[in-house]
Amino acid sequence: MADELKGKKIAILAADGVEQVELDRPRSAVEQAGAETVLLSIEAGEIQAVEHDIEPTERIPVDKAVGDASVEDYDGLILPGGVGNPDKLRKEDSVIDFVQAFFRAGKPVGVICHGPWTLVEADLVRGRTLTSYPSIRTDIRNAGGEVVDEEVVTDQGLVSSRSPKDLDGFCAKIVEEFAEGPHEVAEAGATA
Amino acid sequence: MADELKGKKIAILAADGVEQVELDRPRSAVEQAGAETVLLSIEAGEIQAVEHDIEPTERIPVDKAVGDASVEDYDGLILPGGVGNPDKLRKEDSVIDFVQAFFRAGKPVGVICHGPWTLVEADLVRGRTLTSYPSIRTDIRNAGGEVVDEEVVTDQGLVSSRSPKDLDGFCAKIVEEFAEGPHEVAEAGATA
Repeated sequence: MADELKGKKIAILAADGVEQVELDRPRSAVEQAGAETVLLSIEAGEIQAVEHDIEPTERIPVDKAVGDASVEDYDGLILPGGVGNPDKLRKEDSVIDFVQAFFRAGKPVGVICHGPWTLVEADLVRGRTLTSYPSIRTDIRNAGGEVVDEEVVTDQGLVSSRSPKDLDGFCAKIVEEFAEGPHEVAEAGATA
Repeated sequence: MADELKGKKIAILAADGVEQVELDRPRSAVEQAGAETVLLSIEAGEIQAVEHDIEPTERIPVDKAVGDASVEDYDGLILPGGVGNPDKLRKEDSVIDFVQAFFRAGKPVGVICHGPWTLVEADLVRGRTLTSYPSIRTDIRNAGGEVVDEEVVTDQGLVSSRSPKDLDGFCAKIVEEFAEGPHEVAEAGATA
């Protein structure tokens, strides 16, 4: 099964404040399955990763600004958490445009912890079932999403988990969904 | 005017990740107007303040756990920002109970930057007009609040501002509102 993502390219979209383990472990998982990964951010350069939302860890090199990236080049998207990371991403039109185009294409997306805030901003949780870090569940529900409290939830190619402790299940499931490929695109508000 | 808050006690409610200047400057402003201030948090002890949402600054001593505080003892409430701070506060029942009781009593509240997330969680922005840091405006609107982009907004004793650059106006307005005292309590959904 080590080649199940061979030939696929996976985008990771993150900014300063990304929870490092939520970037590193999914990246390793898809690379070990044969995929190439590309780290997108608001700008080229580096982003500051953290641990426990606030303790600075490494600076991580960005491969490309999201505004210069094309959805057609990627087979899957990973949105890590860390409270400050989606708080920065969601303010950027280039980010919102990219994730909306990704969903329109029906391509699989993995989102963990505070990551769903970016989807809330882009109005992409409406009619979807997902899980998240506890603090943002009211924001997801208010944006029309259904929230459940489970290790991994999959809804029409959208894989979600709650926190770093769910990474084993999250990584296994995103590899599976990325291997499966695009889903048919349902109308907003419809469920699978 | 140095005594306009003499005899009044003002609660500040914050957790780890509080933007230090958004705690220090409003505290100084109300103390210079004669008020006593009490720093409430999730637990007694200390909280870690930050600058620019993420760079650690000082550890600040907490005066009392919010679960041990009574709304009747306070004449006003200040909710500072810093992205990680309300993200922690909003998960705690003791916090939600306290802010809901504060609003039921019609007592004046000042909230800045990311602070309104706690009010979103407590369903207290519905029918209110306020401002905030740009990243959380969708969450406020989705919770039924009206968001405007102004330095300081006051709606029925709720004073709000966007970020540290608004602190001059914010501090002046909270002193004025705290001096004025409780407002009549409107029904949820009603506007002034």
